[in-house]
Amino acid sequence: MEQVALGIDIGGTNTVFGFVERKGNIICESQIKTQPKDSDEVYFGRLFPAIEELSKKLPAGYEWIGTGIGAPNANYYKGTVELPPNLNWHIVDVVKLFREKFSLPAFITNDANAAAIGEMIFGAARGINDFIIITLGTGLGSGIVSGGKLIYGHDGFAGELGHVVIKEDGRDCGCGRKGCLETYASATGICRTVFELLCNRTTESSLRNIPFSSLSARQIYDAAVAGDVIALEAFEYTGTLLGKALANSVTFSSPALIVLFGGLAAAGEFILRPTYKAMEENMLNIFKNKVKIVLSQLPESNAALLGAAALFWSEYNKH
Amino acid sequence: MEQVALGIDIGGTNTVFGFVERKGNIICESQIKTQPKDSDEVYFGRLFPAIEELSKKLPAGYEWIGTGIGAPNANYYKGTVELPPNLNWHIVDVVKLFREKFSLPAFITNDANAAAIGEMIFGAARGINDFIIITLGTGLGSGIVSGGKLIYGHDGFAGELGHVVIKEDGRDCGCGRKGCLETYASATGICRTVFELLCNRTTESSLRNIPFSSLSARQIYDAAVAGDVIALEAFEYTGTLLGKALANSVTFSSPALIVLFGGLAAAGEFILRPTYKAMEENMLNIFKNKVKIVLSQLPESNAALLGAAALFWSEYNKH
Repeated sequence: MEQVALGIDIGGTNTVFGFVERKGNIICESQIKTQPKDSDEVYFGRLFPAIEELSKKLPAGYEWIGTGIGAPNANYYKGTVELPPNLNWHIVDVVKLFREKFSLPAFITNDANAAAIGEMIFGAARGINDFIIITLGTGLGSGIVSGGKLIYGHDGFAGELGHVVIKEDGRDCGCGRKGCLETYASATGICRTVFELLCNRTTESSLRNIPFSSLSARQIYDAAVAGDVIALEAFEYTGTLLGKALANSVTFSSPALIVLFGGLAAAGEFILRPTYKAMEENMLNIFKNKVKIVLSQLPESNAALLGAAALFWSEYNKH
Repeated sequence: MEQVALGIDIGGTNTVFGFVERKGNIICESQIKTQPKDSDEVYFGRLFPAIEELSKKLPAGYEWIGTGIGAPNANYYKGTVELPPNLNWHIVDVVKLFREKFSLPAFITNDANAAAIGEMIFGAARGINDFIIITLGTGLGSGIVSGGKLIYGHDGFAGELGHVVIKEDGRDCGCGRKGCLETYASATGICRTVFELLCNRTTESSLRNIPFSSLSARQIYDAAVAGDVIALEAFEYTGTLLGKALANSVTFSSPALIVLFGGLAAAGEFILRPTYKAMEENMLNIFKNKVKIVLSQLPESNAALLGAAALFWSEYNKH
């Protein structure tokens, strides 16, 4: 029998799940709409039958031995998802629900930590014991690995680098404070930066025709590829602030590698080059020229699913 | 036979060493001048005979089983001290020298990490797996413990929080950059702050009679005790900047405890109160009211020596 883990990524829009071999091959996968307005009871009432259906499609010779879950506001220690900002859930003991339903071991962690484990087991951080993953999506998430282990902290909430304050009295953040890194360095942050630049510059730009509410990081990327000066400056600015923040983060855990992951990382060199340049320019001497920054090596469409499955395999490997 | 470890703290002025029981009792101790101008050959040519002499004073019934060393610019992984800024040494394989001389296991780490291990084994962090120690001396050092283990990073240099940049174009730092935390939050930093305040305020102050080159943190403390308004504001300002920086650090490793250690920590509530207040005011919601800040619980005169001995005991406990 070939063993497989079920990996589940609970996102704000879709929940993607699939059976993954120890080496990272996805055997079969499926998805449901997350439906943010659903209560947790209604949501799991839809998810569990969908999983059972997928498990019937698992070819003969495969044995499902456990489950790994990535979710917003997930707590690895408690097995819970607690008051996720974009879902209509209360405090849900997700691990308990899964163990009771399927009588198999289950583990949960937040999206960024799952991505970190995914890179460690299947991606860019294979064989690297000290690295940081930065997920650049709607917000900025991070997972910090030190000595081969994720840093969870005393309560399971470590690795919130998106909420390091980088500008005194800076941009309003969803957390209620001002100037957090994610208000600058994220898919949302770069959109805000474009509007700041459209205000400050007189340069022509295709981005002047797009309202704030519909501008996306993808459109900024497309404009940058077409040579739009505002779009190029927005990437430069975003990367510079991210690079400075990473130089500060390096003093903490001295990683050998930083992996950029998620929507904004898809902009490749546009974000990578200014980030690396600013990090090196602002780096303490003893860390200079030691830290690589690379893009995620997980396939973008399945990265979160692979990260969730990797969580299970990394726990399984411990025993 | 009762087992003892030799603990050695190599400071810029004095080298203190002593035999320490597993529970932290110091059996006997001694010291030599470090003599910063001495080459490493000359220095160890003086230190080794002094250790041999002390070992003869160890009462019958005690067995010396190994050595722990705290030193500036020490690398735990390599066992070396590399180009310490205040000593006339090159790259010295200190662990090898000790193992060859005394045929006993030896370990070395930097001063702040030794202090962290000291607090973990003998002091304020006993039984706490996730904490940060901040040493407030000439500079600001830090040791970060996560899941019961020191964070060393891929090269052994993790935990340089004194060089997190907290002010763009801020004060000149010895590292060649500007605005590092230690230029504000350290014994030296508070002296610089006093002169900034003497410039900006018209308030009378006893500190107006002291030249820059001879002002000490101790004098500022004494003035604060006497109600000097400038001295009080200097502590307020120092603590506020330190507290904001700590709120950012908490997002990284989510510690349950932060321990303040070293010269400036001796100012007690003068530094503790504004630091804690600013940390809580600037803390991300999920970390609020979870993180304690306390003063070191190691006796000030022997803290570094106990930390060095604790390094040996923590390594010994691993095996």
